[in-house]
Amino acid sequence: MDQNKLNRVLESMKETGIEQLLISDPASINYLTGRYVNCMERMQVLYLDVEGNHKFVIGKLFPQPEMGVEVIYFDDTEDCVEKLASYMRKGTKIGIDKIWPAKFLLRLMELGVGTEYINASFIVDNIRQIKSAKEQDLMRQASRLNDLGCEKLMPLVVKGYTELEMGDKLLDIYLELGAEGHSFDPIIAYGDNAADPHHESDNSTGKVGDAVVLDIGCIKDGYCADMTRTVFIGEVSDEARKIYEIVLEANRRGIAAAKPGARYCDVDNAARDYITEMGYGEYFTHRTGHNIGMEVHEYGDVSAINENVLKPGMCFSVEPGIYVPGVAGVRIEDLVLITEDGCEVLNNLSKELTVIPV
Amino acid sequence: MDQNKLNRVLESMKETGIEQLLISDPASINYLTGRYVNCMERMQVLYLDVEGNHKFVIGKLFPQPEMGVEVIYFDDTEDCVEKLASYMRKGTKIGIDKIWPAKFLLRLMELGVGTEYINASFIVDNIRQIKSAKEQDLMRQASRLNDLGCEKLMPLVVKGYTELEMGDKLLDIYLELGAEGHSFDPIIAYGDNAADPHHESDNSTGKVGDAVVLDIGCIKDGYCADMTRTVFIGEVSDEARKIYEIVLEANRRGIAAAKPGARYCDVDNAARDYITEMGYGEYFTHRTGHNIGMEVHEYGDVSAINENVLKPGMCFSVEPGIYVPGVAGVRIEDLVLITEDGCEVLNNLSKELTVIPV
Repeated sequence: MDQNKLNRVLESMKETGIEQLLISDPASINYLTGRYVNCMERMQVLYLDVEGNHKFVIGKLFPQPEMGVEVIYFDDTEDCVEKLASYMRKGTKIGIDKIWPAKFLLRLMELGVGTEYINASFIVDNIRQIKSAKEQDLMRQASRLNDLGCEKLMPLVVKGYTELEMGDKLLDIYLELGAEGHSFDPIIAYGDNAADPHHESDNSTGKVGDAVVLDIGCIKDGYCADMTRTVFIGEVSDEARKIYEIVLEANRRGIAAAKPGARYCDVDNAARDYITEMGYGEYFTHRTGHNIGMEVHEYGDVSAINENVLKPGMCFSVEPGIYVPGVAGVRIEDLVLITEDGCEVLNNLSKELTVIPV
Repeated sequence: MDQNKLNRVLESMKETGIEQLLISDPASINYLTGRYVNCMERMQVLYLDVEGNHKFVIGKLFPQPEMGVEVIYFDDTEDCVEKLASYMRKGTKIGIDKIWPAKFLLRLMELGVGTEYINASFIVDNIRQIKSAKEQDLMRQASRLNDLGCEKLMPLVVKGYTELEMGDKLLDIYLELGAEGHSFDPIIAYGDNAADPHHESDNSTGKVGDAVVLDIGCIKDGYCADMTRTVFIGEVSDEARKIYEIVLEANRRGIAAAKPGARYCDVDNAARDYITEMGYGEYFTHRTGHNIGMEVHEYGDVSAINENVLKPGMCFSVEPGIYVPGVAGVRIEDLVLITEDGCEVLNNLSKELTVIPV
């Protein structure tokens, strides 16, 4: 258990009147304890109590070496929520993890443990949002490898590989570079598929004139990278070129707006307003970005409704895109890290329009 | 939307007094609609109402072709739960999906839509538990490919590959056999790792005398296989051989107990009692099996506390194991399908003790 992080969580619990907090997100448990466990459908809960009676409750299939907090095991014949509840105090407000499955929450409510149950993930999430100096270095390192990986991947778009094969090639590249693997299933999309912002890679192959979206990320020492470049096979149409230049300028404007004191929505607006001005507003169908760290999507996003203020140490993507079916899909994404007076862009691979010769 | 399946769900809703049901499990949505969408942290809900006002609520990032139910889209600037609630009736009991994240459930409660919220996944899960004739064929087909894949994998345990490399080799084998891929991250565990029933494959390699647990599964046409064989590298110690034979007999006894009218716990007991009798009870640390179908772990399990009665069409694993640190870990797993008068074993690969020559 990281005492420094724990103290910040306990302090925030006291400030917000949440005396007992249930943390079930494996990434948040890992953040606080340095221990990552994937229990699939079984329960795991790090129970924190402002009075100090912390417990880690987990199935006995997952024995844990000493971790600085008492571990309570349940077996598959026990009611795990009842066991958890037996260590909790009655009659207080209880903070619940945003991802806690209903089967556990409804059972806890049935047992009548709390006076009120509130989504309190913001407590740990707000702390996780601000990357420490050490975490910032890890984020830099992961993105540096991702730049190198992307550079090696780009020339392969003309080799006839399917989207799924490209993902396999990319995994080999990442492993060779010393990364642990993909930080998410890469989105590699040729032509028409590129115009679907959430296309899942399939057996499609590319053809001359296709835009190719490469939305890729590696994981290195437990921290995630995530970037997107869009390249063209052989040639590029005038409208696709126009779209590319608009997205690139939107990406630059988003990055320019990312500084302490500004709000997440200001970054979204900066990118979106430009795309709208240029007449493609209806084709930019998603938020401008999301926070990132030990998970590829962390709490916080760059959207029109997020009015939270940017602070040094926050790390998120700036990834505007324009998707015009039958014409082209283009997305350009960099990670940025908020600094004392602006932001540091973690990706340094060129964003100039690139046509890969056939 | 599959009208036949839908009608069975609506009938069960009426029987149990649940007038409105929220289904969020992508596999259950797929089961009913034939549409699988992975929305990550965004909400997707198939809302069913006994009065017939069904809706599918999903982010507009995920546009859906016609699917026989009205699709309601929300965008990232909207409160998705509020949008869902606007289509629901006030003042009834509401069935909630067991995996629905707390962030959505707590918001729905805050909006005061229902009089009561109950975990009602059993409605769809009970229907999914009974495989139709078509589904039974798909389960047979997936397990047949898994038998072939396992047979091809076994000789590789002496080739010096790491556990993770073995997983990659297995993926190639599956793809070549025409499967879509792994149905879960394979557990391939050499020696000491084999004695940890939930070991995650790493860079370990095998040595002479090691037991090697191969817990593997492919997915074919959307249905999952899952089997375990344990083989030995070069030689086998007397105690390891003894353990192997006990596990094999426990596997056979579990299978013999699997028939209509018996209970899940009877299957668990049949396997467990024998292992206990033979003095290894404390080393069999997990339940005997789990249900399987479109997901590798589906609702239902073969455990001491599951007293539900077996019916034709149910499909689950029988996978006893004995894990003695420093000696050997052995698990032997087959899938079985309950028939009118017993069960059909879906795996046909030999379970005789196999030593792979070095």
